[in-house]
Amino acid sequence: MLTLYGYWRSSAAYRVRIACHHKGLAFDNRSVHLVRDGGEQHLPAYGVLNPNHLVPTLVDGDLILNQSLAIIEYLDEAYPMPALLPEGPVARAKARALAQNIASDCHPLNNLRVLKYLGSELKASEAQKTAWYHHWIKTAFEGLELQLEQTSGEFCVGDEVSIADVCLVPQVYNAERFKVALDDYPLIRAITARCRALESFSLAAPEQQPDAL
Amino acid sequence: MLTLYGYWRSSAAYRVRIACHHKGLAFDNRSVHLVRDGGEQHLPAYGVLNPNHLVPTLVDGDLILNQSLAIIEYLDEAYPMPALLPEGPVARAKARALAQNIASDCHPLNNLRVLKYLGSELKASEAQKTAWYHHWIKTAFEGLELQLEQTSGEFCVGDEVSIADVCLVPQVYNAERFKVALDDYPLIRAITARCRALESFSLAAPEQQPDAL
Repeated sequence: MLTLYGYWRSSAAYRVRIACHHKGLAFDNRSVHLVRDGGEQHLPAYGVLNPNHLVPTLVDGDLILNQSLAIIEYLDEAYPMPALLPEGPVARAKARALAQNIASDCHPLNNLRVLKYLGSELKASEAQKTAWYHHWIKTAFEGLELQLEQTSGEFCVGDEVSIADVCLVPQVYNAERFKVALDDYPLIRAITARCRALESFSLAAPEQQPDAL
Repeated sequence: MLTLYGYWRSSAAYRVRIACHHKGLAFDNRSVHLVRDGGEQHLPAYGVLNPNHLVPTLVDGDLILNQSLAIIEYLDEAYPMPALLPEGPVARAKARALAQNIASDCHPLNNLRVLKYLGSELKASEAQKTAWYHHWIKTAFEGLELQLEQTSGEFCVGDEVSIADVCLVPQVYNAERFKVALDDYPLIRAITARCRALESFSLAAPEQQPDAL
């Protein structure tokens, strides 16, 4: 059985939960509380599993793996069906690019540790932190919406769920949580609604996790 | 022939240049000057190619692709040999995780647009921006060095160049440019030195590009 170290509100962990449910993979869902006691991810015992002290970490037998997209690619190679990468190099490339637009260019800027640094080191106010958060989501979603005009069908790439949708829905969750207006992104909203209607996405939702507040 | 829109100092473009040279792929190397005239990446004509207004963008026939790691995965599928992903799901997963440690958790925080925002919106001083830059590189390199103890041989994953090395060397270039001390990272330094001795890496180096200052 797989073991997933995550946190209910971590959107990187949320991605991996969606991927596991999509593939029907049972996993032991272990909470690494990112806030309590200064953050359990900083504990030395967790650092043995994940030297970056971030979530998620997947354990599959002898393999201990970090980075949500590397985990999802691994799951897609080790447990191929149903796939999360489309067939053919071109469609796969488009799915990966959309996923990385979120996972590399948007989410890391709004991660908990970054918001903490803005406050503690740069003395950013709550309003400035919120403006920062909104800025990077809007910047990413503007580009994403234009790209989805080229790539999407029912989902981000054509009519099948892919790694791109797995990244999109947690990012939309973050946007809603921080009250980013999504009116300008009709494709993002429509695709997210279709995803949320699927059991794999609803089972993975933050509120459904045992460590949710 | 491939067309690569990049910039000499962009470490994401640098990654793709290494990948192309590694595979012996000829490419038309077009400069998108990130500084001149407020940044050529913001021009509407470039936005048609890359709605995120970032570099790099690869054009291969009808395919227009952004995101350096998606581009490298595409090149590895479309032009398989010599490979940039190792064989077997476990080794591939480790290479991807190391690559994403850099491409998702380190580099995006130190990108030009982020440094600009820190200055213009948060009024960060030059010293504060430098401290920010150093902080995220050191945070990433500490974790990376520990992971390399588990995964590395001559290169990041075993004894062959992979996507992880392709990401590591441009990040070390950035670290050196901003005078981050690398004494605590002997594996990072040794692997970088071995990579730099290879023609694929030296041809891709920023100083070798036609748009270098």
